[in-house]
Amino acid sequence: MTACPAEFIALAHQLADAARPVIRHYFRTPVDVDDKADASPVTIADREAETAMRRLIMAAFPEHGILGEEHGRHNTDAEYVWVLDPIDGTKAFITGKPSFGTLIALCRNGVPILGVIDQAITNERWIGGSGHPTSLNGQPVRTRGCDALAKAYAYTTGPEYFDDATRPGWDRIAAAVKLARYGCDCYAYALIATGFVDLVAEAGLKPYDYCALVPVIENAGGTVSDWRGEPVTLHSPGTICAAGDARLHAQALAVLRG
Amino acid sequence: MTACPAEFIALAHQLADAARPVIRHYFRTPVDVDDKADASPVTIADREAETAMRRLIMAAFPEHGILGEEHGRHNTDAEYVWVLDPIDGTKAFITGKPSFGTLIALCRNGVPILGVIDQAITNERWIGGSGHPTSLNGQPVRTRGCDALAKAYAYTTGPEYFDDATRPGWDRIAAAVKLARYGCDCYAYALIATGFVDLVAEAGLKPYDYCALVPVIENAGGTVSDWRGEPVTLHSPGTICAAGDARLHAQALAVLRG
Repeated sequence: MTACPAEFIALAHQLADAARPVIRHYFRTPVDVDDKADASPVTIADREAETAMRRLIMAAFPEHGILGEEHGRHNTDAEYVWVLDPIDGTKAFITGKPSFGTLIALCRNGVPILGVIDQAITNERWIGGSGHPTSLNGQPVRTRGCDALAKAYAYTTGPEYFDDATRPGWDRIAAAVKLARYGCDCYAYALIATGFVDLVAEAGLKPYDYCALVPVIENAGGTVSDWRGEPVTLHSPGTICAAGDARLHAQALAVLRG
Repeated sequence: MTACPAEFIALAHQLADAARPVIRHYFRTPVDVDDKADASPVTIADREAETAMRRLIMAAFPEHGILGEEHGRHNTDAEYVWVLDPIDGTKAFITGKPSFGTLIALCRNGVPILGVIDQAITNERWIGGSGHPTSLNGQPVRTRGCDALAKAYAYTTGPEYFDDATRPGWDRIAAAVKLARYGCDCYAYALIATGFVDLVAEAGLKPYDYCALVPVIENAGGTVSDWRGEPVTLHSPGTICAAGDARLHAQALAVLRG
């Protein structure tokens, strides 16, 4: 795969820089549990951050497409499409827990070639792309070796994200690994890229939930596919199996398939 | 209840200050999954941080008792007993996730009168005590009102912490609340005190897991008991029901009891 152009890497940083102050402004804004307002702080933050990012993309590369969680599709048949989720982990955000993240991906012909996971509160930014090894705040990070499920630390966001078709797969993984934990949102994928988590399996995801994770993990040495074992693209079914070690990934896939 | 003496508050800050650099030093230390060393980074950090805290207590108040997760009991029949868990949430710590915390409590005749929840990586310190309203980094915090389970945001660390006797209680809570989430360790209690989470229910806890949480939540306006509804002391059975609003606490207790 050809290297992701440096000007796209630079824009990805600018997008994350633009989202951060919006997210910080609304994080831990007091909310009454009886509040009937149409727009909660997380919804407002989501919309404002995405608007800021879309404006920067359109100014820099008007020919690029955009797929955003909040404001929909723009020119998504273009060669290059930016995929944006300003706040992945809205339930973490509304409960004041900084495990949510801003997800930014660039897809070329549907294939993710650049990804950012940005945590605006802890000031952590993971970025990786084709030809650009993954870094955390500018320092290179790597996945760690883990050759067996019985040694693996695994995460998934929560049992409620599985349906009857996918829950048995996760349950088998949870029974096979050394440690299975809930509640990390996109942060768990960043921890794979950094070498502290070995495996994440999820289902029911949308392109803006998963596209950014792929380059971050792959360019740190890890492997990502859907549960069929197919490469993850803009048009994937929304199941994700991500591992720091290709051997573990193969074992996890076999277990997920049953 | 008489106010907690200011000199004890000052010592609690010193203890948390002593634990922080130890924890930061070992956090995200690379660990090989095949490492067979007796002591993992989290174990070393736990021990070293507790040693530092015990030394400060013995120097300041040699007549006080100490109950620590790592180094056991010292003079725990004393009027005042410090209860220490340097790293509550070791599984979060070993996977590189900053939702663990340092828990420091002071009990008088078995009753928690002072509590600290300190997060060494995000630099957040909650402290509350009798006569000392709970603060986060020096700023006062309060629980929020929530008068019904159907409106409540609830957390528990993970389904694996319940046994056959307690799991049905949590399952009923999870079915009754607006949002039930896993994976927050002691941080979820701090978020109750700060007004972003309404309820936490857990079981199987040890005194060093729960004593510090009680003054932090009560002095922010919340209510804590065991699942029988009894006040939480050094000698409680290890079930905890904590809520930001006393009305919600009463409803949750009724549901937990079935």
